[in-house]
Amino acid sequence: MKSSGFDTLYTEARDFFEENLISFCSSPGEAIPPRLMNSMAYSLKAGGKRLRPVLCIKGGESFGLSREKTLPMALALEMIHTASLIHDDLPSMDDDMLRRGKPTNHVLYGEALAILAGDALMGWAFEYPLSTLPGLGIDTGRVCRAMQILANALGPSGICGGQVLDTDRESIEETPDFPWKVTRQKTAVLIRASLLTGAVLAGADEKSLDALGEYGWRLGNAFQIVDDILDVTSTAEELGKTPGKDKSQKKRTFAAIFGLEKARQLAAEESSAAVRALEGTSGDTSFLTALAGYLCERTR
Amino acid sequence: MKSSGFDTLYTEARDFFEENLISFCSSPGEAIPPRLMNSMAYSLKAGGKRLRPVLCIKGGESFGLSREKTLPMALALEMIHTASLIHDDLPSMDDDMLRRGKPTNHVLYGEALAILAGDALMGWAFEYPLSTLPGLGIDTGRVCRAMQILANALGPSGICGGQVLDTDRESIEETPDFPWKVTRQKTAVLIRASLLTGAVLAGADEKSLDALGEYGWRLGNAFQIVDDILDVTSTAEELGKTPGKDKSQKKRTFAAIFGLEKARQLAAEESSAAVRALEGTSGDTSFLTALAGYLCERTR
Repeated sequence: MKSSGFDTLYTEARDFFEENLISFCSSPGEAIPPRLMNSMAYSLKAGGKRLRPVLCIKGGESFGLSREKTLPMALALEMIHTASLIHDDLPSMDDDMLRRGKPTNHVLYGEALAILAGDALMGWAFEYPLSTLPGLGIDTGRVCRAMQILANALGPSGICGGQVLDTDRESIEETPDFPWKVTRQKTAVLIRASLLTGAVLAGADEKSLDALGEYGWRLGNAFQIVDDILDVTSTAEELGKTPGKDKSQKKRTFAAIFGLEKARQLAAEESSAAVRALEGTSGDTSFLTALAGYLCERTR
Repeated sequence: MKSSGFDTLYTEARDFFEENLISFCSSPGEAIPPRLMNSMAYSLKAGGKRLRPVLCIKGGESFGLSREKTLPMALALEMIHTASLIHDDLPSMDDDMLRRGKPTNHVLYGEALAILAGDALMGWAFEYPLSTLPGLGIDTGRVCRAMQILANALGPSGICGGQVLDTDRESIEETPDFPWKVTRQKTAVLIRASLLTGAVLAGADEKSLDALGEYGWRLGNAFQIVDDILDVTSTAEELGKTPGKDKSQKKRTFAAIFGLEKARQLAAEESSAAVRALEGTSGDTSFLTALAGYLCERTR
């Protein structure tokens, strides 16, 4: 697939998601306090690549499920991701004032509302798919399995555990494997879950799910390594957030541990391993192959 | 049912839950960072009445489902409740140092870990039932519905919304209905969900679920009014937390708005309404009837 073809497919899926996200935010339930809704919607609509919803939509499409039917799960993934960003930015955590070129949630709404907006998004991320997917005709066994994957990606062995490993000094382990362990939990687990939930809802076979799971781990690793590199090499304008934060916070990133050149090499290796994993799947994998290649080009 | 009979039944269900909670906490998954597990377990094991898990267990038993099969959902309810307490106690929220007679989570583990422990418990509360209930032979349709009730009780129109109404000055409404609205979202929604999830997993009929839902709202209201009264009338030793916090934080509690005598009367009315609602259910309601009566006796 040519790069321009990939761009079109990505943009199309992202735009579909964005439009639906905006209409989703514009008709909240009556029982949601308006200030809470504003705070959640502010961060949900703040932009970003929408990688997780796009992966979910494409995971479903690869096995024949329409994007309208994966949409509730795509929204849930963006809610979980957004909740984790709101909490990561808090003064007691990474203490960031800027995210995607805009003030962070707690800067605008205060710490208490930012914490509650993150919590509420976590609850909504389960409520919304559970209340809509069965009505779209999706088998409840598949719904349970997809929701379990989502919950695992959020919970103590998912991104919450990853954030502890990444920020809690007493949890640091001085082993060569540690940065990989952090990346697996902090980043890769939710990227993997995005693809897998889409495929599970579509009823993909077990062999394909294994292959997509391996692709997800590898793509997630590559994504995090690239992110570490860009934190060193980009300007605030390019990044939409304060660059150099990793270094000032003494984070043990891939760039810090291995240096930029070696980090670029590791990203390329993970990207290649992701593509190789796709050989085991029966669905259409052209988009996923192009995505893995595109990711590495960002560091050049 | 005699009060002593009720006491025995309550204690028996609570002890069953406590024993299983302790063994649950003692064998965490390998992927959970130890400091995160310690922080979660500290608050999970800090005691309390265990009202929510007991209601879930009794809701299941009323319709013939064994406590072993509702246990994962009972654990999930206590996780959600515990997560909300950890976050409510944070410096940027209620700023409490004492909970159930012990230092609050952030006092021991710091703010960042306390926030992440709450987040991780929210994820685990979905992961654990979703990964165990289908294997216990419970129909996935029932699992989806019970999890949806749990998610709704957590999300933006559940306890997160309720906490916003209770603590965010700009969200206060000067209407007579407002304290009821706050109570419904802050407290009653999770108490109702506790009973309903047990009954849904057991396959209770729709008429009974409607009746139990109404009982849950009313019991939750009574519970909150009693809590407001005890905040005024109890010592720190009796309460296990700092008394008089509501007044010092200028919270619009039932006791503050209506005075103690009127608040006691409202609690009794809600308790009676809860018992009347039970007439519509086909299950065994003797425990729930006794519970509603017992609750009001606490204020005497």
